[in-house]
Amino acid sequence: MQKIGYKNIKIKDGFWGEKLRMISDVTLESVYNRFKETHRFDALDCSWKEGDPDCPHVFWDSDIAKWIEGLAYSLAFKRNAALEKIADEAIEKIIKNRDENGYYNSHFLVTGERFTRRDEHELYCAGHLMEAAVAYYEATGKRALLDAMCKYADYIEKVFVKEKSASFVTPGHPEIELALVKLYETTGEKRYLELSKFFVENHGSNDIDEELYPGCHKKYNQDEIPLKERTTADGHCVRALYLLSGAADIAEKYGDKELFEMAERCFDNIVNERMYITGATGSTCHGEAFTINYDLPNRDAYAETCASIALAFFAQRMFNLNKNSKYADTVERVMYNGILSGISMDGKGFFYENPLEIDTTFNEVHPSTQGGKRFPITERKEVFDCSCCPPNVIRFIADIGDYMYSVDENTVYVHQYIQSETLCDGAVISQTTDYPCCGKVLFKASALNKAFVAFRIPAWCKSFEINKPYSLKNGYAYVEINGDDAEIELSFDMPVRVVASNKKVHENAGRVAVMRGPVLYCIEGVDNGDSIQTVRLDIKNEFVIGDRVFLVPSLETVGYDEKECDGLYFDASDEYIERRLKFIPYFAFANRGETDMLVWLLKK
Amino acid sequence: MQKIGYKNIKIKDGFWGEKLRMISDVTLESVYNRFKETHRFDALDCSWKEGDPDCPHVFWDSDIAKWIEGLAYSLAFKRNAALEKIADEAIEKIIKNRDENGYYNSHFLVTGERFTRRDEHELYCAGHLMEAAVAYYEATGKRALLDAMCKYADYIEKVFVKEKSASFVTPGHPEIELALVKLYETTGEKRYLELSKFFVENHGSNDIDEELYPGCHKKYNQDEIPLKERTTADGHCVRALYLLSGAADIAEKYGDKELFEMAERCFDNIVNERMYITGATGSTCHGEAFTINYDLPNRDAYAETCASIALAFFAQRMFNLNKNSKYADTVERVMYNGILSGISMDGKGFFYENPLEIDTTFNEVHPSTQGGKRFPITERKEVFDCSCCPPNVIRFIADIGDYMYSVDENTVYVHQYIQSETLCDGAVISQTTDYPCCGKVLFKASALNKAFVAFRIPAWCKSFEINKPYSLKNGYAYVEINGDDAEIELSFDMPVRVVASNKKVHENAGRVAVMRGPVLYCIEGVDNGDSIQTVRLDIKNEFVIGDRVFLVPSLETVGYDEKECDGLYFDASDEYIERRLKFIPYFAFANRGETDMLVWLLKK
Repeated sequence: MQKIGYKNIKIKDGFWGEKLRMISDVTLESVYNRFKETHRFDALDCSWKEGDPDCPHVFWDSDIAKWIEGLAYSLAFKRNAALEKIADEAIEKIIKNRDENGYYNSHFLVTGERFTRRDEHELYCAGHLMEAAVAYYEATGKRALLDAMCKYADYIEKVFVKEKSASFVTPGHPEIELALVKLYETTGEKRYLELSKFFVENHGSNDIDEELYPGCHKKYNQDEIPLKERTTADGHCVRALYLLSGAADIAEKYGDKELFEMAERCFDNIVNERMYITGATGSTCHGEAFTINYDLPNRDAYAETCASIALAFFAQRMFNLNKNSKYADTVERVMYNGILSGISMDGKGFFYENPLEIDTTFNEVHPSTQGGKRFPITERKEVFDCSCCPPNVIRFIADIGDYMYSVDENTVYVHQYIQSETLCDGAVISQTTDYPCCGKVLFKASALNKAFVAFRIPAWCKSFEINKPYSLKNGYAYVEINGDDAEIELSFDMPVRVVASNKKVHENAGRVAVMRGPVLYCIEGVDNGDSIQTVRLDIKNEFVIGDRVFLVPSLETVGYDEKECDGLYFDASDEYIERRLKFIPYFAFANRGETDMLVWLLKK
Repeated sequence: MQKIGYKNIKIKDGFWGEKLRMISDVTLESVYNRFKETHRFDALDCSWKEGDPDCPHVFWDSDIAKWIEGLAYSLAFKRNAALEKIADEAIEKIIKNRDENGYYNSHFLVTGERFTRRDEHELYCAGHLMEAAVAYYEATGKRALLDAMCKYADYIEKVFVKEKSASFVTPGHPEIELALVKLYETTGEKRYLELSKFFVENHGSNDIDEELYPGCHKKYNQDEIPLKERTTADGHCVRALYLLSGAADIAEKYGDKELFEMAERCFDNIVNERMYITGATGSTCHGEAFTINYDLPNRDAYAETCASIALAFFAQRMFNLNKNSKYADTVERVMYNGILSGISMDGKGFFYENPLEIDTTFNEVHPSTQGGKRFPITERKEVFDCSCCPPNVIRFIADIGDYMYSVDENTVYVHQYIQSETLCDGAVISQTTDYPCCGKVLFKASALNKAFVAFRIPAWCKSFEINKPYSLKNGYAYVEINGDDAEIELSFDMPVRVVASNKKVHENAGRVAVMRGPVLYCIEGVDNGDSIQTVRLDIKNEFVIGDRVFLVPSLETVGYDEKECDGLYFDASDEYIERRLKFIPYFAFANRGETDMLVWLLKK
């Protein structure tokens, strides 16, 4: 399976054109300013000493690295000399402050022993720097960071594989596994792939049972069983999903069937039993973790933005092992919902946690100490102490083109429908579409030397038309083009759908959600007034497609509310008051001040 | 207003006869054994020394005291020489180990300074010993403990009022206020009433803002404002309700209108905005406290048994100030629901917390540390470290007769309908009834020298008949008897009712509960299988009145369940599977092993 590469894909307008412009014009600079103010860029100097304020945090390097990586992708959308200069300077500091082995970590270089604390993000930071190095080299042709990271990877191989002198075998926070695969793909050096395989294959063999956080034992780091024995996705979601992404890479590169089957079991477990309708995962803030099947609380969802991004990484890689549309369906679910909700419409604010309900009246009542309850914050922030999500959103959106296509010998697979022009093996392919606002796509290919174009039929779509003969296989409609110029019209019916969840999800008992195409909707207090919590939706109701307030149309319908009453308890009634309801896309919630929000409405 | 006194009321059979027999035959001995095993009775020796195990806890005296008080009431139902001997020996130890001032506290006598730690239950224990002394004297004629407690009360007056030598002004945990009123009523010594008034009137004047528990400041102890300024019931529920009970007593005895109005505001706030349908209060385990209006979570309800008992105390006293049926309605609500759920059907097990939902699948998922969730235990225990509830249930049930009647110059008020015979001012009044199984009551009075008998029309009753002329006033039907022998038949229609809650209670949005008469019902997994969480109730459904499994009839009807599906999300449907549902009384939940339980069902 071959990738087209983000540099060959031009997304200038449409839904994602807007988002790419926002990242390029606003977000990169805003996140840079916040990282500078919080001394993350200063830390690259490695001049911190005992007694100084602002000791570099163990994961600050990864913040810088993801920002550089995101900038790299964004440069393909629009050059930006000022930000490129900042990246160059940062890279210069990293290179200058490395030790003689090529080791670099702005925390451990100034604080102490290296490769002794498994859980402390040391290899995780190295992995992110490698990803940044690859992306920045591809974007700019500058290979200083790439060379530096190759040297660093060689040193890691020496310490972990050859000498086995580190005090642990595999990283507590996976990430370097998938990064080393990228390093291999860019440099062609097989030893990086081998090193990745080493970390993947040994995961789960750590026999230290330290309690990393209260109640978080081995499972937190996916350490309770050898990786290939996994049947469910467990522990810290981002760790689990980065590890599974690396495992999918290794399964593909080495044709490891057992590893693939493990990854497939975990993927199916996630999407069929442990995933929010937004594509988010993480049912508890306790260890930022998966819990048990069907445990999907809404108001106190953890649903970290990074976990949604990591699920896209994992799903994207799984397609290389199994040409099934379920992976790109999942990418689509997170890209329009659980990931995009992580960034504000103005491009400056971020959510780390993405709840599916906000109840402002009761959220603040129960203090989280002493067995109380803990709810996510209700308005986005520009930076966090643990600010992994903001630069992760930047790099995900800036790299969105990479999720559109896969290519093999005979076929171009069209996973995502995005207004764009793409250079593929010297040929030009284009999509003209207003997706996700409507389901019509005009696909053109000129001089594309392939037998087939395979179009994903989205799982949400119950009816579609293609103006050419096709055959369906595993969720893709294969249209034979035989290397000819092609002009293919696709039309996916995109009615408003009222969606229920499995009855085992007790949190959603008696409730339904509204979707149109891949976009999940919600209602907010700011549009709908008080007590959105008690309003009921008749699933037979018609919806009116409204204006595009947040890039996609809002929806309107009639809801049915209980009557106001005095006192607490009284005879139940079947009478309702009709009430106009306005739905906005879930990804746009919490952009107009603190207000109530609800995804899962009561079903009438 | 005059009380009849529990000794004049004979309840031999019927619903409460069964409960009294259980207390007398089983519970008193079982709780005694548990208290003995846990060294609570040993502590009375005051022989503990630094380094010994089992240091007497600050509130162990109150456990013993409530047990003695409960025994005293129970002796009127059935003598028990063995238990009376145990009580006598305990009392002997208390008297023997007092200091020269009459001071007794098994914790502070062996550990240190007295009257220095406001929050440590010192006056609370004294209060409970006074209540025990009064009850035991009335039950047995033995006045040793009563005399001892008078001396102790005198000493407390000296320290707190005359010398003001204690390091605080009013107790952190109220209780002594209402106890001193009882001591006054039994001894006729006005200074005990004055001392109670002192504690009541000064409450809220404590200016130490210590954080008693994390996040629990002055409000926890009802200290944030002077008592008379209160407009809502706040803080630790038992503390608040014991204080309000004492305040109601003082308002009555001194005709203090301001104090009455405060108590009335708080009462209305509780029953209209802060009370579970069971009559329980306490929406959070954090400080065992009231939170804000309409915050009534079900699965993690705190709903302490003692708080339900305390609400009965408060409501009972409020009638003396305002002849309105809302108070006895509230007593009825707690006595059949929130209190009775605190004890198992076999009389040995207890709940401290009384949730309104148990979801065994998900309750154990979220650890309460680190911002997780905390749920009440799912099966009753015979003793707790903090075992206030078991002896409180004993004394409440053993004293149930005291809630039946109030008497003033012209009228006997009938608050509760209980099969019984009562001596009232030398006359005999009786109730023949199967209440709460049916709504028919035959009331007889012979030679009762009163003008009226006033019968409470329960708030739940929409239709009733009385075979004599009556006039309705504030929820009571006044029947004129003019001192004649009377035979009055009452018939309260008792259909199954489907009840909704105020829409501001977001936890109950779209949900209904089932009641019959005063008895709340629930469904359990043990009767109804899996996924009781998703089943819907059509409020127009007929119910079949079933057998009396737990003293009152079970109920059956048809519920409507969602279909089983694979995967997580799919198009919503209006099709349901019909499913037989069996309801049992809420007070009998969790008597057949750990199982799911639900009070608030989805409304179809």
